[in-house]
Amino acid sequence: MTNLGQFHVDEVSPSYWRVTFANGPVNLLDPDTIDQLGALVDRIEGDQGLTVVVFRSDNPEYFMAHWDALADKSRVAAMKPGPTGLHPYLDNFVRLSKVPVATISALRGRARGAGSEFVLATDIRFASDKAILGQPEVGLSSVPGGGPMARLARLVGRGRALEILLGGDDIPAALAAEYGYVNRVLPDNELDGFVDGFARRIASFDKVAVSGIKQLVDVASLPEDAEFAPGLAAFFATSGRPENAMFTHALFEHAFQQPDGIELDLGTAIGRLRQKDKA
Amino acid sequence: MTNLGQFHVDEVSPSYWRVTFANGPVNLLDPDTIDQLGALVDRIEGDQGLTVVVFRSDNPEYFMAHWDALADKSRVAAMKPGPTGLHPYLDNFVRLSKVPVATISALRGRARGAGSEFVLATDIRFASDKAILGQPEVGLSSVPGGGPMARLARLVGRGRALEILLGGDDIPAALAAEYGYVNRVLPDNELDGFVDGFARRIASFDKVAVSGIKQLVDVASLPEDAEFAPGLAAFFATSGRPENAMFTHALFEHAFQQPDGIELDLGTAIGRLRQKDKA
Amino acid sequence: MTNLGQFHVDEVSPSYWRVTFANGPVNLLDPDTIDQLGALVDRIEGDQGLTVVVFRSDNPEYFMAHWDALADKSRVAAMKPGPTGLHPYLDNFVRLSKVPVATISALRGRARGAGSEFVLATDIRFASDKAILGQPEVGLSSVPGGGPMARLARLVGRGRALEILLGGDDIPAALAAEYGYVNRVLPDNELDGFVDGFARRIASFDKVAVSGIKQLVDVASLPEDAEFAPGLAAFFATSGRPENAMFTHALFEHAFQQPDGIELDLGTAIGRLRQKDKA
Repeated sequence: MTNLGQFHVDEVSPSYWRVTFANGPVNLLDPDTIDQLGALVDRIEGDQGLTVVVFRSDNPEYFMAHWDALADKSRVAAMKPGPTGLHPYLDNFVRLSKVPVATISALRGRARGAGSEFVLATDIRFASDKAILGQPEVGLSSVPGGGPMARLARLVGRGRALEILLGGDDIPAALAAEYGYVNRVLPDNELDGFVDGFARRIASFDKVAVSGIKQLVDVASLPEDAEFAPGLAAFFATSGRPENAMFTHALFEHAFQQPDGIELDLGTAIGRLRQKDKA
Repeated sequence: MTNLGQFHVDEVSPSYWRVTFANGPVNLLDPDTIDQLGALVDRIEGDQGLTVVVFRSDNPEYFMAHWDALADKSRVAAMKPGPTGLHPYLDNFVRLSKVPVATISALRGRARGAGSEFVLATDIRFASDKAILGQPEVGLSSVPGGGPMARLARLVGRGRALEILLGGDDIPAALAAEYGYVNRVLPDNELDGFVDGFARRIASFDKVAVSGIKQLVDVASLPEDAEFAPGLAAFFATSGRPENAMFTHALFEHAFQQPDGIELDLGTAIGRLRQKDKA
Repeated sequence: MTNLGQFHVDEVSPSYWRVTFANGPVNLLDPDTIDQLGALVDRIEGDQGLTVVVFRSDNPEYFMAHWDALADKSRVAAMKPGPTGLHPYLDNFVRLSKVPVATISALRGRARGAGSEFVLATDIRFASDKAILGQPEVGLSSVPGGGPMARLARLVGRGRALEILLGGDDIPAALAAEYGYVNRVLPDNELDGFVDGFARRIASFDKVAVSGIKQLVDVASLPEDAEFAPGLAAFFATSGRPENAMFTHALFEHAFQQPDGIELDLGTAIGRLRQKDKA
């Protein structure tokens, strides 16, 4: 077991790593996450024996809640581009999607916003029947920055991508599986065993085959790196505008970023607060 | 409530319009529809406060039956290109798909041919469990002109797009949802409430976010405008050929374009008449 | 009824052919299949009256098991490029996907590896509820050569394509339909009637419409021919390496390529043998 800050890396075997994310009571993503995920992707890229990585959370309610709205914006703005030439927030996701190993999200709890963007950058998403996904940014007056316009449109088709991204509502696991947002949904108590079996299977395969197959699926299915940049630019341009300060304040009054408040039911809560705001 | 001929525009609020289509007993599309839809798209494009438009029909059996086979072909042939440089029939659909607001089809009844092409040009399709979709053109010896080859192939995948387009049969709502032809299917008596709630949600959001998100989904999912032109050219080349006059005559003998004849069950009816024709 | 070696062609009518594949007890594909399929595609391309071809097997357990691991590699390596400039193994599939008629796989039994690649090159896949699909190559330390990276990624989306291709496990028909790998699944005893009805429907339509529609769906959904070449090159580079000889030997010890051994349950069997191998 090694540790990259918020990412605990359990080297189950030389070909199989299990990575557990933990950052506070709801598993927020923040500037440290960016730095540490970059380091983790470096390690995955460079390991010669690795064929499969599983990402999971020990928090049954929160896989990764979303980006920390209280994070230091100037630190994020000052970050230097990564190897792809993109801002490291995007660089991490783009490089993660291309690592020469199979990556699997074992999705239990909530994965919204940046958390949804993270799981979309992994290859395969297996979800507990209690999992919830979503891109709530539209309700916070922002354009999502981590690429879900590019990825969801290709994964679930234009119609459902627009429903998810313009509706900004919670997508329960069963609906996510119908739409193709996740690969499949499993009973909560079967998720870990299923994912472990699937990962051990790939861990027993030849890396030459795994990486060779993935590279050709990448050609057929990944957007050009450059397609992601305008999304992050739009996020920076729309997020944190002064005219939205009051709404953000209202969210925090309802325990935003706390485990037992509106985070449980964020899609509905944002809709209710917005329509009260508008009325 | 304002009126653009066949399109009745109910401005529910400055950010939310509800548009009801009505044209005769089965809601045919015809040359007037082209002109009036062009004017409606102009208005939607130009409105600064609008974030969401719902399209619906008051006729529970017919959302939009299909193109009027008795329409004046010379009037259509003489129409000048729209702003995209495409014939206005296509120009309307291409521009509709790119308006900087969310567009939703609340689909009750039948939407075949041009009606299916219309709903495919909107962003999101929510369907009553009694809705029926289809592209029957192949059975009428024509290539569909309004872009379903381009749109369905990307929305539901090559295999199901070819089934829908080469089979030319009716696709009931439940199957349409399985295939991704519509976003989801709802019990008929829940459709209006669900769509209205979804629309009011988007109507409460910031237009900057709605339009910014949609623009990036467009990049990821819309065909180039030029891809549509060969489809309409193929429609003009194949539709109304003298060798098909007898079959069209047979359709009208079975109450084609009337509410209580073969329009109810057009997919099956065309199959039966074609095979009798062939035998 | 005419015969092209392993492909028995039943000309049901001038516009409707039914092709039954048969090659040994599990319907392996081999170098003769390549030659004979090339000749069959030539005939389909050249026939002026044909609108629909159904592919089927008389063997209820095996539609097409997979490529014959005992086939003469030097004969395959020496084959001259087909009309597309690709090796004939790929040339056949690329040309089959573009023939100006509707092609339908009536899928009963197993279609793995090259068999899966074959059905993916047809337009429409209707499956018995007892059918099984899969791309087991990864478990045999190979990259699949016949294009499933290109085709599955576009058909079922990146996430599910990677699950199928990197997991290399059996995909039962019901899951295949959920994923879009097949169009739909039917009760086994309804498959033949359903497919025949669907085919007769298309057979009654005008070839000008059928071929015109398909050509435009091709534009929207087919990869460029050149995208396929690296996959076959990777197959030739990875398949049959000396380091895999022992594993292949183990497969044959468990009745690989025989009807009643591990072919029945190949996905599970490969996983079990690999993990024993690794342990």
